[in-house]
Amino acid sequence: MAFLVKKYGGTSVGTVERIQHVARSLKEARDAGDDIVVVVSAMSGETNRLVALAKAVQPAVVDVRELDVLLSTGEQVTIALLSMALKELGVDACSYTGAQVKILTDDSHSKARILSIDTKPIMKDIEAGKVVVVAGFQGVDESGDITTLGRGGSDTSAVALAAALKCDECQIFTDVDGVYTTDPRVEGRARRLDRITFEEMLEMASLGSKVLQIRAVEFAGKYNVPLRVLSSFKPGEGTLITYDDEEDSMEQALVSGIAFNRDEAQITVAGVADTPGTAFAILGPISDLNVEVDMIIQNVGADDTTDFTFTVHRDEYKRVIDFLNSKKAELGAKSISGNDRIAKLSIVGVGMRSHAGIASKMFRRLSESGINMRLITTSEIKISVVIDEKYLELGVRALHEEFELAGDEAEKD
Amino acid sequence: MAFLVKKYGGTSVGTVERIQHVARSLKEARDAGDDIVVVVSAMSGETNRLVALAKAVQPAVVDVRELDVLLSTGEQVTIALLSMALKELGVDACSYTGAQVKILTDDSHSKARILSIDTKPIMKDIEAGKVVVVAGFQGVDESGDITTLGRGGSDTSAVALAAALKCDECQIFTDVDGVYTTDPRVEGRARRLDRITFEEMLEMASLGSKVLQIRAVEFAGKYNVPLRVLSSFKPGEGTLITYDDEEDSMEQALVSGIAFNRDEAQITVAGVADTPGTAFAILGPISDLNVEVDMIIQNVGADDTTDFTFTVHRDEYKRVIDFLNSKKAELGAKSISGNDRIAKLSIVGVGMRSHAGIASKMFRRLSESGINMRLITTSEIKISVVIDEKYLELGVRALHEEFELAGDEAEKD
Repeated sequence: MAFLVKKYGGTSVGTVERIQHVARSLKEARDAGDDIVVVVSAMSGETNRLVALAKAVQPAVVDVRELDVLLSTGEQVTIALLSMALKELGVDACSYTGAQVKILTDDSHSKARILSIDTKPIMKDIEAGKVVVVAGFQGVDESGDITTLGRGGSDTSAVALAAALKCDECQIFTDVDGVYTTDPRVEGRARRLDRITFEEMLEMASLGSKVLQIRAVEFAGKYNVPLRVLSSFKPGEGTLITYDDEEDSMEQALVSGIAFNRDEAQITVAGVADTPGTAFAILGPISDLNVEVDMIIQNVGADDTTDFTFTVHRDEYKRVIDFLNSKKAELGAKSISGNDRIAKLSIVGVGMRSHAGIASKMFRRLSESGINMRLITTSEIKISVVIDEKYLELGVRALHEEFELAGDEAEKD
Repeated sequence: MAFLVKKYGGTSVGTVERIQHVARSLKEARDAGDDIVVVVSAMSGETNRLVALAKAVQPAVVDVRELDVLLSTGEQVTIALLSMALKELGVDACSYTGAQVKILTDDSHSKARILSIDTKPIMKDIEAGKVVVVAGFQGVDESGDITTLGRGGSDTSAVALAAALKCDECQIFTDVDGVYTTDPRVEGRARRLDRITFEEMLEMASLGSKVLQIRAVEFAGKYNVPLRVLSSFKPGEGTLITYDDEEDSMEQALVSGIAFNRDEAQITVAGVADTPGTAFAILGPISDLNVEVDMIIQNVGADDTTDFTFTVHRDEYKRVIDFLNSKKAELGAKSISGNDRIAKLSIVGVGMRSHAGIASKMFRRLSESGINMRLITTSEIKISVVIDEKYLELGVRALHEEFELAGDEAEKD
């Protein structure tokens, strides 16, 4: 008897049969007494189909306002079909688009941020015993224009709804059965975590664990919404993401997981003035280009200049390099250089907050494996290094072993 | 330099190439100085695809609220793509769903009626020089639920917009190049009419001339919106539908066209009391079944009973017959009988208002052709007869000749 938001992604609702499967799972939960708000994505393949139509009409630059009008139809189809499937099973249900709910966002088409949600219509339906089906990924701005939250934004929709409705838990159903100590495709002995903290999950998510959208985890942490990652296809408890629990922290592992990301590229602006304002002079215009910057590293300079290094998504690499070259004189930089064949490798764990020596343990092991570290950054619960892409798998497995993350069963092998 | 609503149906926007073709036509009109609101349907095939999905989920009875949520995505895809295609040609454009405009309707899902339209956002865009692209077929009710106007409802959307915006003309682009004296597939010598009155068009439309939705013509007549039917694919002036113009009426033909309809079935409730209330006792419950009744004929009874005959859509025939049989005792009817192999054949023309003898001319010719009339009804501008379906083509051609409707060129053959 809980009040739950359950979110199903595109693969989970990819066919009529899968939608019917989701409806049966929802009926079981409803019959057990749970109150349910479901958030769904577009049927898998649908968003790609719509994007292809848009590109056929506007090959160069697609109009983002109209693209949002187009793409938002994907989830709208799913909410209608899932509501129908629920009614077919005798479960009373009602669908809502983002505009109907209404999920108010800013007007940044294709990457809008949620500002507020009108919970009244949903609560009325919940009190009437209905399952409420909401279109993920979409909202509406002040002027009534349809917006979308960007790919994967349905997770964010789900968490925002759970926060606004003060639900007991936000359950994200996906094609994996939880969060692992690292990617099982790289390290076969990776183990599913029963629990993980928001901070750890944030670091894992931002480093390429594709299980959850980083914005969804931020939202969940900010509003303290317990988040659970589960499989749509096989039963299980999944992984629960909550704040660090004092009582549990005694047995907290020092390192919870190994995260990595191959999608980044490194860019160095060398020989710029070591004065206040330099970082902003470089990153301000890049942010204006709508490019997200991940790592930022600046070391103390030997003279009155310094080298400024940051990483961006690999797809943006060429655009940013070209842009910086065009601004080179203006920035007073000696050179612009970069590398897009790098990978980022991190260890994550709230336990390392109170334990020294984790970093040196990591660096020693990588060194023993013959892996050179190009960049290093640290936070309270994460240490990240940038290495040559070709050493990534080797590094992941070495650190997974070093921090004893393998499951018991796997270790018996 | 006119203010126009232009409506394109599903075939006209059926592919990306056709959407681009429509965009080019709109650019020409815009370049010539016209202010334009475009109303579009779903791409052809899309509505059927969505209906098939709904039926796969709910094979028996589909939930109409959710069906409207589902179907309305069809037009939403088209407005986004057409707006993109216009922008690609350098024409500033902006799309609106029915809910955004907002086209307020009652809450009769799948057959909603338009109550009002908010013209402010459209006029603002028009004044800014934009082409406004509106999703046809859909609206929103008081509670914010998405509604649809029923198949072909995009015509109604277009006319309602033209009325609300006080446009100079509402142009309906379709796959035929105008309104003909009768169906050219039945009578090769059928001629395109340059003009026709609303009343005539109403009678033609209700009798199966599929060119325009009857509700669209009603709307246009009520608000005196000049309506023009044109081809999307070949140039031409099409057929203008307006009120009867006094000056033109001198040269008005007696009969403008021959309409027909194979979709009907005839039902007779025989031997009911010839008293006030009998017609309502029969038709009230049928209307409650949501069955539309077309012709209604009641002749004076020979004794204190009478025979009551009406026609319904052929698809409803069995349901209505079964229903009436279950009510037979309650109605005090002697028998319930019917025929679903009939066709309705009509002559239409405002000219016949002031000319006697049209009816007898029609009946004589049908009789000479050996065609028996089962039922007859008349209005001021129309005479309809019900005949055996097998005689329909014969009847159409005979009357087309009798009232000299063939085009000049065709007559030379």
